[in-house]
Amino acid sequence: MKAVVYVRPRSGVLDPQGQAVASALKHLDFPEVIEARQGKTIELVLEDGDVETAKERVTQMCEQLLANTVIEDYQVKIEP
Amino acid sequence: MKAVVYVRPRSGVLDPQGQAVASALKHLDFPEVIEARQGKTIELVLEDGDVETAKERVTQMCEQLLANTVIEDYQVKIEP
Repeated sequence: MKAVVYVRPRSGVLDPQGQAVASALKHLDFPEVIEARQGKTIELVLEDGDVETAKERVTQMCEQLLANTVIEDYQVKIEP
Repeated sequence: MKAVVYVRPRSGVLDPQGQAVASALKHLDFPEVIEARQGKTIELVLEDGDVETAKERVTQMCEQLLANTVIEDYQVKIEP
């Protein structure tokens, strides 16, 4: 079973990496870029089991390790 | 218009961040984790325009800046 976790800065939280990307793209002649935000994706390979349980467990992983919930949002997707 | 770029280590390329995540999760009592791979997500806000052109332009951004194509794969998704 596979799980994908998307972690990204909460809206309103400063994102210096994203700002650096946007500024670099503008300098590389991509003036159509208005804003960029950078997050991370964690792909997990899990032992097979119940999808609902997996979703709960991966949510626990996010709360405990994968995301800093003070400044980051996360989204969990299970691919059976 | 929004574009989302997923960048992740090519299969076969060592991913020390992913290995650290997998090992930390096992120590946090998530033994069901077999493997983890970590990539990044860049969300771009673009000036409105043609979807096909946007996809080409964002692919150029990936080749020039967002991905290191020697060791990373990327995927572009345009959300009109």
